[in-house]
Amino acid sequence: MPSEKRQYSPVTPDIAAKAAKIVGEKFVIFGDTEKLEPYSHDEIPETRYAHTPECVVRPRTAEEISGIMKLANAERIPVTPRGAGSGLSGGAVPICGGIVLLFDRMNRILQIDRRNMVAVVEPGVVTNEINVAVKEYGLFYAGYPMSLETCYIGGNVAENAGGGKAVKYGVTERYVTGLELVTPTGQIVQMGGKLVKDVTGYNLIGLMLGSEGTLGIFTKITLKLIPSPKASADLLCLFQTPQQAIAAVPLIQTTSGIIPTAIEFMDAAAVKASAEYLNESIPYERAGAMLLITIDGPDTEQVEQQYEAIGELSQQAGAFEVYVADNYTTSERIWRVRRNIGEALATITDYQSSEDLVVPPASIPKLVEGMGKIAAKYDVAIPCYGHAGDGNMHTRVVMNPDWAVDKWDQTLPRILTDLYKLTAALGGTISGEHGIGHKRKPYLGLVLSAEAIEMMRSVKRALDPNNILNPGKIFDV
Amino acid sequence: MPSEKRQYSPVTPDIAAKAAKIVGEKFVIFGDTEKLEPYSHDEIPETRYAHTPECVVRPRTAEEISGIMKLANAERIPVTPRGAGSGLSGGAVPICGGIVLLFDRMNRILQIDRRNMVAVVEPGVVTNEINVAVKEYGLFYAGYPMSLETCYIGGNVAENAGGGKAVKYGVTERYVTGLELVTPTGQIVQMGGKLVKDVTGYNLIGLMLGSEGTLGIFTKITLKLIPSPKASADLLCLFQTPQQAIAAVPLIQTTSGIIPTAIEFMDAAAVKASAEYLNESIPYERAGAMLLITIDGPDTEQVEQQYEAIGELSQQAGAFEVYVADNYTTSERIWRVRRNIGEALATITDYQSSEDLVVPPASIPKLVEGMGKIAAKYDVAIPCYGHAGDGNMHTRVVMNPDWAVDKWDQTLPRILTDLYKLTAALGGTISGEHGIGHKRKPYLGLVLSAEAIEMMRSVKRALDPNNILNPGKIFDV
Repeated sequence: MPSEKRQYSPVTPDIAAKAAKIVGEKFVIFGDTEKLEPYSHDEIPETRYAHTPECVVRPRTAEEISGIMKLANAERIPVTPRGAGSGLSGGAVPICGGIVLLFDRMNRILQIDRRNMVAVVEPGVVTNEINVAVKEYGLFYAGYPMSLETCYIGGNVAENAGGGKAVKYGVTERYVTGLELVTPTGQIVQMGGKLVKDVTGYNLIGLMLGSEGTLGIFTKITLKLIPSPKASADLLCLFQTPQQAIAAVPLIQTTSGIIPTAIEFMDAAAVKASAEYLNESIPYERAGAMLLITIDGPDTEQVEQQYEAIGELSQQAGAFEVYVADNYTTSERIWRVRRNIGEALATITDYQSSEDLVVPPASIPKLVEGMGKIAAKYDVAIPCYGHAGDGNMHTRVVMNPDWAVDKWDQTLPRILTDLYKLTAALGGTISGEHGIGHKRKPYLGLVLSAEAIEMMRSVKRALDPNNILNPGKIFDV
Repeated sequence: MPSEKRQYSPVTPDIAAKAAKIVGEKFVIFGDTEKLEPYSHDEIPETRYAHTPECVVRPRTAEEISGIMKLANAERIPVTPRGAGSGLSGGAVPICGGIVLLFDRMNRILQIDRRNMVAVVEPGVVTNEINVAVKEYGLFYAGYPMSLETCYIGGNVAENAGGGKAVKYGVTERYVTGLELVTPTGQIVQMGGKLVKDVTGYNLIGLMLGSEGTLGIFTKITLKLIPSPKASADLLCLFQTPQQAIAAVPLIQTTSGIIPTAIEFMDAAAVKASAEYLNESIPYERAGAMLLITIDGPDTEQVEQQYEAIGELSQQAGAFEVYVADNYTTSERIWRVRRNIGEALATITDYQSSEDLVVPPASIPKLVEGMGKIAAKYDVAIPCYGHAGDGNMHTRVVMNPDWAVDKWDQTLPRILTDLYKLTAALGGTISGEHGIGHKRKPYLGLVLSAEAIEMMRSVKRALDPNNILNPGKIFDV
């Protein structure tokens, strides 16, 4: 139990009634364990991180959230914001109990401003819906993560989510130009706007990005849109070995003069799991690893020029076969395989740990090599896939099926410590886009100095003096 | 005098001796008003913002800076970091006295890591030198501001400087992936690294960007580089009226599907001043305003396709003539005119105010129209130029030459209030890239709520408990 827990009060029937007065009775769940249980976990497969909230509240407005936060401060009740629950770090799990705030009722696209190329949305909008809505105007929200069809944009901002197109387009942070938020003490604050540049006072929007729901509750988000690329194509490059594939990545980036939209890596084990899960034929038997490279541009001719240059470089780097997918159907088939790796691996067993390592891009070969050694040392599977162009590699450390759960529980922290130390030694860190949350909190000191963590703590204390907003996440206060 | 001033101690000979012990005697200036005077101001033309430091210290290492900060905390001495002194908001002016820190001795490019496409530099490197150094590797630092030939990269980070290429490439913040800094209390802290993605704990790098030297002193900066565009061209589009030129900007951006590198606006008065200053022939007599549009890409053919599309759109939007500059010499001639507008206007009189308004891009026509009305109302010149593609317009409010200085001093605050209120009413703000500093501090409340400013204050108090790092800037604590 986190040390924070002692300082909080329970949600009493009286407090639940006060919350109901703020948001309406039918938007509060209280005293019904079965209805509360779905909010006890996110997408982490392991049950050890679960914690059922005492109360769930579904506000409709910033004012209602402000009311809840003032109540929670007065009564010392923890409040944990929860988006779609698609997180992978336990960030939305109420580990100190208290209230979980849902945003399913704050799901409107408030404005699509074509002339300024921005969208103003509520936090509960499913990310992909933004792109569906802006498509007809030739616009595009490029910051979305791989889980775009289920995740909420509010959660994307809270986690500073990345995605498959980050090589060219960056991650969420590049696109958030305005925020309305409720502070931990219940103030409603406007930041930024439909502005491309803004240096008026501190960069509080920057501070909020990736704060994992611990510094503010977003109620309105202004997102920069860009002109839709008018053409795109994907290359699927087959290599004999992961080492060859991985070594091709910095070569392609530094010598082509082209910035690809995406450079994804998949080892044979990851592709196989996903292809079998989807019943999709993809020539994984013949390749030790693959790169999936996306190019986009203003017309098909320019895209063709670019993918030819990159295809050639891949072959120079050792690709023995390069497939081109220049239409939606074929591209989507390949990307579906890439997107479903995590889910496919998740079906193997509940005993696995989803990881989000990031290193300087040129160190990926060493990272992959080191991961292989750790897998051998502990006799577990560590299939490897991810955003090679960003240096952001995902893996699922999968329990050896011969093991008892006890052995897994004892061994996993040692495996993770080895993995994280390897990453740190390569100048990398333990999360590129999933966040620290509860799951990686014990390991933060492996990659951040005590002084850096203390700076973060002091910012948290300054903005949340009673430590009630999503306590116990990232670090203990 | 700012209210902060009372709380500080003077720099005594004893304290100066202690500082000399830390950095070496010849790197401390003390007790010599003539030698201290150059550090009393930045590039703001007006003298009202000047304040001579009591002592100037020129450290060589993070450890030395740490020593100075510990001394300053113990003795309650204000410390103001100063880059090249090319700022336009008074940010580097020691308005509470105390010590000014110079970075001219911390001017090394420490590493150019081609495989990871990053450069690691000290804060005193002149920004343009980074691009000179990485050019031979086909790489490019895209975050630089217009003053690149004189400014320091440390100042760019402190101000989150923008630049002419921000439409396509963003501003400084997009490129800073790692920072080493000294905190206000003297701790040396490492943040980030050679990482494209990083969500490990709070985004402290984001918080530091644009913190105007009030939250940390940068000692090592890791910058993301990108592949150099292999071809580029500039279009100079002549319009009859500023309104026509300005109205063309959102049209070009939303309908072309192309993201230009830059879209700069210059009204006739601004071009005339600069062309005469440089003795450069440019057809300003015939145009009411011009757009300077840069395109870049991976080869000349693609650039040609793009500039033809954009040239056509400009003509549809009313450009009566479009010149293409597709070689370095011609491009440089045009850009020199654009870059020197500020300096040209500065030669007219010391009585002028350099402004940095930013609005949602589609509101630029209304901003320019409103600026014209304010100029007429007060009978002053407000020539207008800037980064139209970003909504970031510069101006110099120039004193009517018939006025006495007294009248100017009394009228300017009213002119600025009108300008800033106009900007705020359009959803804009008072600084896009120059910062608040000392100069815009009295007006912060026109664009930020009391709650937002209080959040900033509480962050400042948390990280700088004695309020000694660049006090009196942005807001009073």
